[in-house]
Amino acid sequence: MAKEIRLNAFHMNTPSHSWAGLWQHPRDRSLDYTTPGYWADLARTAERGLFDGVFLADVFGTYDVYGGSRDAAIATGAQSPSNDPFMVVPFMAQATSHIGFGITATLTYEQPYQFARRFSTLDHLTGGRIGWNIVTGYLKSAATGMGQSTVRSHDERYDAGDDFMAAVYKLWEGSWEPGAVLRDKALGRFTDPARVHTVSHHGPYYQVEAAHLSEPSPQRTPVLYQAGSSGRGRDFAARHAECVFLNGQTKAIVRDAVAAIRRRAVAFGRRAEDIVIFLGATVVIAPTAAEARDLAADYAAHIDPIGQLALVSGWSGIDFAKYRLDEAIRHEKSNSIQSFVENITTKAAAPITPRDLIGFNGIGARGPFVVGDPAAVADELLSWVDETGVDGFNLARLVVPESLNALVDLLVPELQNRGRFKTAYGEGPLRRKLFPGDGPHLPERHAGAAFRHR
Amino acid sequence: MAKEIRLNAFHMNTPSHSWAGLWQHPRDRSLDYTTPGYWADLARTAERGLFDGVFLADVFGTYDVYGGSRDAAIATGAQSPSNDPFMVVPFMAQATSHIGFGITATLTYEQPYQFARRFSTLDHLTGGRIGWNIVTGYLKSAATGMGQSTVRSHDERYDAGDDFMAAVYKLWEGSWEPGAVLRDKALGRFTDPARVHTVSHHGPYYQVEAAHLSEPSPQRTPVLYQAGSSGRGRDFAARHAECVFLNGQTKAIVRDAVAAIRRRAVAFGRRAEDIVIFLGATVVIAPTAAEARDLAADYAAHIDPIGQLALVSGWSGIDFAKYRLDEAIRHEKSNSIQSFVENITTKAAAPITPRDLIGFNGIGARGPFVVGDPAAVADELLSWVDETGVDGFNLARLVVPESLNALVDLLVPELQNRGRFKTAYGEGPLRRKLFPGDGPHLPERHAGAAFRHR
Repeated sequence: MAKEIRLNAFHMNTPSHSWAGLWQHPRDRSLDYTTPGYWADLARTAERGLFDGVFLADVFGTYDVYGGSRDAAIATGAQSPSNDPFMVVPFMAQATSHIGFGITATLTYEQPYQFARRFSTLDHLTGGRIGWNIVTGYLKSAATGMGQSTVRSHDERYDAGDDFMAAVYKLWEGSWEPGAVLRDKALGRFTDPARVHTVSHHGPYYQVEAAHLSEPSPQRTPVLYQAGSSGRGRDFAARHAECVFLNGQTKAIVRDAVAAIRRRAVAFGRRAEDIVIFLGATVVIAPTAAEARDLAADYAAHIDPIGQLALVSGWSGIDFAKYRLDEAIRHEKSNSIQSFVENITTKAAAPITPRDLIGFNGIGARGPFVVGDPAAVADELLSWVDETGVDGFNLARLVVPESLNALVDLLVPELQNRGRFKTAYGEGPLRRKLFPGDGPHLPERHAGAAFRHR
Repeated sequence: MAKEIRLNAFHMNTPSHSWAGLWQHPRDRSLDYTTPGYWADLARTAERGLFDGVFLADVFGTYDVYGGSRDAAIATGAQSPSNDPFMVVPFMAQATSHIGFGITATLTYEQPYQFARRFSTLDHLTGGRIGWNIVTGYLKSAATGMGQSTVRSHDERYDAGDDFMAAVYKLWEGSWEPGAVLRDKALGRFTDPARVHTVSHHGPYYQVEAAHLSEPSPQRTPVLYQAGSSGRGRDFAARHAECVFLNGQTKAIVRDAVAAIRRRAVAFGRRAEDIVIFLGATVVIAPTAAEARDLAADYAAHIDPIGQLALVSGWSGIDFAKYRLDEAIRHEKSNSIQSFVENITTKAAAPITPRDLIGFNGIGARGPFVVGDPAAVADELLSWVDETGVDGFNLARLVVPESLNALVDLLVPELQNRGRFKTAYGEGPLRRKLFPGDGPHLPERHAGAAFRHR
């Protein structure tokens, strides 16, 4: 039997996310992103569609590569302003009961002790529905905002990441043994102090000498998401990630990436299926193909080209303001998202121009762009799953709320009719829903399990 | 006309707060502190009573002075576990419309750039109901948890605090000019980049070189709470605080402290009434005096003496496990809460023993302990207001939820009948409610206003 696919709503606490300028669409209500109702509605809709999660991106900094300034990004609302992703999760959790929440957080600017507490608290309050998308941060504007003069190099960011992970595993998995929490009113004992251990972590980047502040939450370690797709990034993902967020525009590229990640995971003693892989995709769906085409054209007309170039300049580290719109992009050295730079330069089949980066059909989509009626969209998405080995999709935000409503009302029933999408949520915390048969905690074969108290 | 008093519910994201062990009371439901419903109920009850705010304490670390170990604190659930206070605020905000939220956050372990964004996000999502209780942190366990080998000295903590405040004022008040946000769909402009300014802060402790990530929230700077009551702490409060949280066990001590803070505020160019002063108090109220006495005795019997000594050892830095219960406490040097140490040693009228620190009637209450029927409690509380100049009270958590219910059902109507408590919330964000006539932003005479773009 062909496997059921998984879907996340890909969103961000900002006026426009993957597609700059769509907040300008007359029917879009993204300007309400600062209000609780916006987030409650988003989560309710995604849960109505039995989505696995709301995956919250974050950009800690402002894109300032295009034209050498942040002006394009902030003028067009291209991931600017960028508000804290943590704070919207409780509003979404309160409005729902099952859906998970993947929160992007940059470990570079955190301390494990404080960070682990924040996630434990949220995992408690949501009944174990929290995931963490591990990112290391590459924006110069974030570094200078945080009082640092330089951004760590690409590989060093991952070295620091391994160090950070060891520290948080110790806090989440090792500090409070099973059975440490008594909560015994008659005995007058909340905790058995003999089962709470000081974490002693003295790594090259991070130091912790303290017990974890929070009692164990339903999942202990949140479900771990990761999106690195460079060589070093894939090693990191294969070791730590339980969900991987992949971008890629051809099935060949995606198939290779999926195989490489699963192969490396197995080399680390894990199972190939221990990693759920989500491919980024943009889907415009309508009852008929003609309506879908019209809708896609309408949306495309509202993409802000300068805003979009501000985004892709930020992701790549290449200043596209220096290029004519139809000029071939040369390979440039960059300290930014390496996979994206490779995709638009050395790995591209034909020369890419800035014009290719602006619209839905161009490489700026970073993944499949699918337009059609429910049957055609389902056909296309399932072909990606079946031919590449991905498990599902992170579906990009378009016009809010109508695009997500359309996915829930049209795509989900079509997939269900084909037996390729669940008809009810599984039981338990997010990890158990994603990995039926596993417990709510990291499996023994995951790197984090080694940090448990023996 | 005598002034209306203000009330906050004083709480913490932990099993027991000011009074260790009350989670063990048969009717107490503090064990639910990890669930959203606990917080929603708390906020709804406090809002039903027209409380000004829920004031959330935080202890970033574990008390480990008593007996030289953390065991007493964690065994008895004395402010351990200690979960993140931020994450419960959205659950409380969602359940209410008017009440404010004061969040204790230790600036020592934060960076202004990231911190300012978190508060701006929360101020947006709550419609301007956020306050920040500025603390500098004094626990060694927090420092070592954060990878630091030492705690800054008392005075240096405040120097760093002044530096931190300058940086966040620049972000909140100066980075985005009024009029910077256009949100103009027709024009395709979210922001006028000419009105967004890079914050350039290069202080002795904190550096920021970036624009603020968030557009201005309803209040911009959250309402600033502060609790320092040493000399240096009072200077800090007089300069920055809009609300001061004071402890003190005699009217003479409190009156002097109030006068000193207001005098210093005036010296900084502010008005005496620019600071709303809340006195910490523990109140047991019941329909009759006899019932209140019985209730207080019942509660007192559930205070965990070892847990309570773990708390006061932590606050004072003095290990009371080294004393017999009836042995006079000597003055010891400490890097902890200086005012508390002074109150139990040099400033005490008679020698204080550990036994005095355990119960409601002792100095462990750190402020008035009031037991009685509604008329008697109102008399006593109003006498403190009228004789010391405080504006109201932070009312300590006792047995949840019945103690707060009793305050709302019995104390509030009594105060209203006397014309000493509001009968409806004022309009607008928290700052406007606390300072009627002022705007939602810091007044021009506040230190933070100097950081606005001119």
